[in-house]
Amino acid sequence: MKETITANWLSDLAFEAEVNGHKVYMDSTAEHGGKNTGPRPKPLMMVALAGCTGMDVAAILWKMKEKIEAFSVEVEGDITEEHPKKFEAMKVIYRFKGKGINRDNVEKAVRLSNTRYCGVSANYRMAFPITYEIIMEE
Amino acid sequence: MKETITANWLSDLAFEAEVNGHKVYMDSTAEHGGKNTGPRPKPLMMVALAGCTGMDVAAILWKMKEKIEAFSVEVEGDITEEHPKKFEAMKVIYRFKGKGINRDNVEKAVRLSNTRYCGVSANYRMAFPITYEIIMEE
Repeated sequence: MKETITANWLSDLAFEAEVNGHKVYMDSTAEHGGKNTGPRPKPLMMVALAGCTGMDVAAILWKMKEKIEAFSVEVEGDITEEHPKKFEAMKVIYRFKGKGINRDNVEKAVRLSNTRYCGVSANYRMAFPITYEIIMEE
Repeated sequence: MKETITANWLSDLAFEAEVNGHKVYMDSTAEHGGKNTGPRPKPLMMVALAGCTGMDVAAILWKMKEKIEAFSVEVEGDITEEHPKKFEAMKVIYRFKGKGINRDNVEKAVRLSNTRYCGVSANYRMAFPITYEIIMEE
């Protein structure tokens, strides 16, 4: 399968990308010559991972008929100090809120995403380790 | 260095991420249970690459005092058919428009981004090959 996106340079370090019919903006900080009109590209890599595994888990838990009140995916990334500054590890924290959610089902959903379904994490794991943690509250 | 982002589940397969003070939305297609309220996560990986290398190249050409009228970065990705569906190659097409832009400078800027500065491409190259092409018009 082929995918294509285009990012157009706006001014200074600002770019506007067109992706699946939606606009995504990126920019750098004032310190580096930008105006912070959008996020930095590297954290977008973490957003892609959160969305990919988050969608898998939401879909699997829906099929398991688990009732989730709130669900968030936090990604922490460790970036090298030397150029090219790149990720050397990521940690994914899955947080669930809801009464009576079955923990085994949640663990199974997260495991299936991490081992079988999430292409973003499969790609990233070829470059650096990804660990995860599950936090549940009522 | 540490970076952190959080993606909050909205409903169905829709997520809202907070990154560098900006919101980024992600969603799936109707075919897969979503409502297309935002882009898919995998193409966001391509957006991150376009922004990362685009900012490098824009900054280097600005330092070289090259006058660019228009500049875009297109990324084409090849995705595997089997699960986990992941990238197996990307191609980056840099398009420049402007009168009298020095091609050697453009090639140098693109090469520096690809070999020394762009952390996103450094990470991705550990997982799959990335090729590039430069297109210039007056």
